[in-house]
Amino acid sequence: MPESPITPRGRDFAQWYQDVVLQGDMAEPAELVKACMVIKPNGYAVWEGLQRELDDRFKATGHQNAYFPLLIPQSFMSKEAEHVEGFSPELAVVTVAGGKELEEPYVIRPTSETIIGHFFTRWIQSWRDLPMLINQWANIIRWELRTRMFLRTTEFLWQEGHTAHATHEEALEEVLCILDIYAEVAENVAAMPVIKGMRTAAEKFAGAVRTYSIEAMMQNGLALQAGTSHDLGQNFGRAFGVQFQSKEGQLDYVWQTSWGVSTRLIGGVVMTYSDDKGLVLPPHLAPIKTVLVPIYRKDEEKGAVLAHRTSQYLRH
Amino acid sequence: MPESPITPRGRDFAQWYQDVVLQGDMAEPAELVKACMVIKPNGYAVWEGLQRELDDRFKATGHQNAYFPLLIPQSFMSKEAEHVEGFSPELAVVTVAGGKELEEPYVIRPTSETIIGHFFTRWIQSWRDLPMLINQWANIIRWELRTRMFLRTTEFLWQEGHTAHATHEEALEEVLCILDIYAEVAENVAAMPVIKGMRTAAEKFAGAVRTYSIEAMMQNGLALQAGTSHDLGQNFGRAFGVQFQSKEGQLDYVWQTSWGVSTRLIGGVVMTYSDDKGLVLPPHLAPIKTVLVPIYRKDEEKGAVLAHRTSQYLRH
Repeated sequence: MPESPITPRGRDFAQWYQDVVLQGDMAEPAELVKACMVIKPNGYAVWEGLQRELDDRFKATGHQNAYFPLLIPQSFMSKEAEHVEGFSPELAVVTVAGGKELEEPYVIRPTSETIIGHFFTRWIQSWRDLPMLINQWANIIRWELRTRMFLRTTEFLWQEGHTAHATHEEALEEVLCILDIYAEVAENVAAMPVIKGMRTAAEKFAGAVRTYSIEAMMQNGLALQAGTSHDLGQNFGRAFGVQFQSKEGQLDYVWQTSWGVSTRLIGGVVMTYSDDKGLVLPPHLAPIKTVLVPIYRKDEEKGAVLAHRTSQYLRH
Repeated sequence: MPESPITPRGRDFAQWYQDVVLQGDMAEPAELVKACMVIKPNGYAVWEGLQRELDDRFKATGHQNAYFPLLIPQSFMSKEAEHVEGFSPELAVVTVAGGKELEEPYVIRPTSETIIGHFFTRWIQSWRDLPMLINQWANIIRWELRTRMFLRTTEFLWQEGHTAHATHEEALEEVLCILDIYAEVAENVAAMPVIKGMRTAAEKFAGAVRTYSIEAMMQNGLALQAGTSHDLGQNFGRAFGVQFQSKEGQLDYVWQTSWGVSTRLIGGVVMTYSDDKGLVLPPHLAPIKTVLVPIYRKDEEKGAVLAHRTSQYLRH
């Protein structure tokens, strides 16, 4: 018997994961583009399933989609001190364009708080403009040295929500409302149980007051961060000068949130259900659905058939 | 009476268009990011409508979505001579990443023939692997100096189809099948009449054998190119060495096509129906739908009401 193309989990968990993704034809490393991957049709179909389910829930809770520039003036990044410190090592920088050296380089968005903060100053003047509830589906670049398909790649796809509120209480409500949506989609769509919680100060988003996350337990006993929701306080409001006139006529900085789920979630789904035989996907997300119907012909086969009636997830 | 915020078409068509887009809250220039725009919720909702309608039709004709890297090694661009010549002046180049000068710079995709050609060499060996029918929803950068919202901006959103076939006949069939889908969506979804045709040699895609397009007639009497479908012949197959073994056992280069529709289509829709009072969108794409029901109370009002029963498109 030829050896299985899939390394057993017990022997090398990281290699097992990579084998499952490759053999399931979900993605493949793009070696010539540093730590990037191609998301193949099987993988992309899972993303489309997640996208639609998340998008429906964002819209049902009053959010609207918009699209902001990929390129961010480098000076924007520096306006929030923690933010620039956290993201600087991961930035890709455009220095030449249209055949010329640029006077001010652009960074490719590692996240969009800064460029959206810039536009919030133009769109928000009064409490009547609040809350502002925006979501964006986009690609992101954060420089990596090693490809771990879906889990950690230089480029990934995600959604990023950015909202502005008149009070801290309302912003916190938003942060937790989104965390609930993430947990509900993880559990009911991706069939992946998660634990909601707050990240430690060391792990919070660069520029946030606090970061909440959903964490899923993988088969190797490690937790995977599968979605984050940030209370930004007035940090970005102050940095970009996003002020509004309150009902009482006073000027105040807006309270902001941001939150995101990325193609990393696909990696979590793969690691939750697959086994040493290969890729297993939950029914709501499997692009190819198969149902096995065991049938017995002779009475002596009945026992074996009934033994198969355990609730099995669909094998792709 | 205060002056209308919308310049009349007759006075300055380009200014009228910009006023309509701004007053309709569809988009706004991002002055600090060269020739870029923000697509606001009203504009993005129109894009979502077009996306879903196009995507359904691509899938119904056997295409699958995938996602390829944003960054393309600069050397890839040079493999097809016409292609590099056509796109060089429009490229944005990443020279620094992860805090270091890169040994080989990356260009931000101005289109993805080259990176997809690279992967086709890995995925296609035999006639059994053909046809390969891939579509990608993505953002594109082609450096511009001036923003014309939706119509011409440095960054835009689009879909790009990339297919490989065993024969030229089959590739041509694909090119024309997609052109028909574009024309049908333009006419039935966007309610925008178009003319299908072949572009002149000077206007064809850089690297194509021939380019077909749909052209819509704008109110200023100019045609707007609203979607293109390219017969790439074996140009990229040769440049990237995408060979397959035919049924007869011979090695041949694949015949490729590529095709795209972008957020520019939204500009076409805006210019087709709007007037001096502002934005008018066709019913299938309008994010906010309004129906006016004229009612008469006295017999002498009847004539005026009936005069209004002309088939009007919805005013946003």
